[in-house]
Amino acid sequence: MNPELLLSRIRIVLVRPSHPGNIGAAARALKTMGLSRLYLVSPRFFPDAEASARATGAVDVLNQAVVTATLDEALAETTYVAALSARSRDLGPKSGMLRQHLPEFLHETRSGEVALVFGNETVGLSNDEILRCHATMAIPTSAEFGSLNLGAAVQVVCYECRMAAHAGLPPVDLNGATPCTSPLATHDEVEGLHAHLEQLMTQTGFFNPDQPGRLLPKLRRLLSRARLERDEVNILRGILASAQQGTGHGRKNS
Amino acid sequence: MNPELLLSRIRIVLVRPSHPGNIGAAARALKTMGLSRLYLVSPRFFPDAEASARATGAVDVLNQAVVTATLDEALAETTYVAALSARSRDLGPKSGMLRQHLPEFLHETRSGEVALVFGNETVGLSNDEILRCHATMAIPTSAEFGSLNLGAAVQVVCYECRMAAHAGLPPVDLNGATPCTSPLATHDEVEGLHAHLEQLMTQTGFFNPDQPGRLLPKLRRLLSRARLERDEVNILRGILASAQQGTGHGRKNS
Repeated sequence: MNPELLLSRIRIVLVRPSHPGNIGAAARALKTMGLSRLYLVSPRFFPDAEASARATGAVDVLNQAVVTATLDEALAETTYVAALSARSRDLGPKSGMLRQHLPEFLHETRSGEVALVFGNETVGLSNDEILRCHATMAIPTSAEFGSLNLGAAVQVVCYECRMAAHAGLPPVDLNGATPCTSPLATHDEVEGLHAHLEQLMTQTGFFNPDQPGRLLPKLRRLLSRARLERDEVNILRGILASAQQGTGHGRKNS
Repeated sequence: MNPELLLSRIRIVLVRPSHPGNIGAAARALKTMGLSRLYLVSPRFFPDAEASARATGAVDVLNQAVVTATLDEALAETTYVAALSARSRDLGPKSGMLRQHLPEFLHETRSGEVALVFGNETVGLSNDEILRCHATMAIPTSAEFGSLNLGAAVQVVCYECRMAAHAGLPPVDLNGATPCTSPLATHDEVEGLHAHLEQLMTQTGFFNPDQPGRLLPKLRRLLSRARLERDEVNILRGILASAQQGTGHGRKNS
């Protein structure tokens, strides 16, 4: 597949960026490496003169940036999401180093849109946001001081994307499952399944929202690992709906 | 040779930097990747509040930066010098791409001090300065827009230095998922889940054993791909059992 086409399918998502200069630096970082799709989730200041100044020749990327209120909106229609995170989390998705994980990430661009998610400069990403991702990737840093500037991190990641896209086709994953018979489910389709499952579990009393424990993150981790196809989401929602009808909670009553 | 020792022998030399923010960004870039030796040849403004602000946790690198009047002074005592330059020059030193050339560059650190030279933001390096270098290295960029910010270029180069210095060490486990918090489910545990799921689907009418279609193989494929843990099987069976209680088909009635 054409490397530039692969790169064009990658969204760079900045979650709650505080400093407009970093937004501008990110726009420039994308464009120098052949990426173009910048998403901003609830930026503190945007548009902003400092963002435009730091973007320099990449003001077009800035002007086309998509601003959303939530991470879910920024991930709509994507089929694979990786977060940049130095910490691995309890119950979190699989984690690895940026360069090692990128070929697999780029491979996913063949199936649809993909996203790379960066957290806020100070607080990073929440556990809830990390659980919406299929993988986390870390940039190797000094043990003494590992705090990359946000714009600099975006530059390193976009550079690695370009290097990997031009390195030739990634090897086929021999541990992978049977090829998809149905397109992969998008982020929003999987979120719909989560909401439906939570509804059923609440109705049956299996899940108590007042004492949530770790049930929901555990289910998220499982479904994220499974890389659901659209067909499978439909089957699972069919099972849930039919169970709800039996319990008298279904929306459709036979 | 110890990777951190290799990195400590690399000088990052900025020639006539115009923007103090880039000097600060460079200091931070060095420190995040385990480098520490910043040289500034005739900087336009230094010291400067903006440089300090952008350096954040790397003010020590900034404070120890060596300011010189000429490139020759900054290169004193070095045994190998490479310049970052996107253009190859007529009669210039050998040129190549950053990643390809770095192993050779790092090899030179065994013999003594080495330097990586970055030009001014607008005009780059003069031919005379390039001729003082043993090699030029380029960062691959988009054909459409290849103008990296100086601080961002320093970040990419320091990152590649770190990656190359550590390349001899055993790689981090790349395919590794987050370690299991529970042992993997055994074959018979997964079979028990399948049977339970089939039972519920039959009870609710979602599955008709007389017209099975491909529903069961599809669910098998999905659960096989997920590599279920024992804990997850227990959760899923709990959800199924609570749904059965609601439908009046459960074995335990509350």
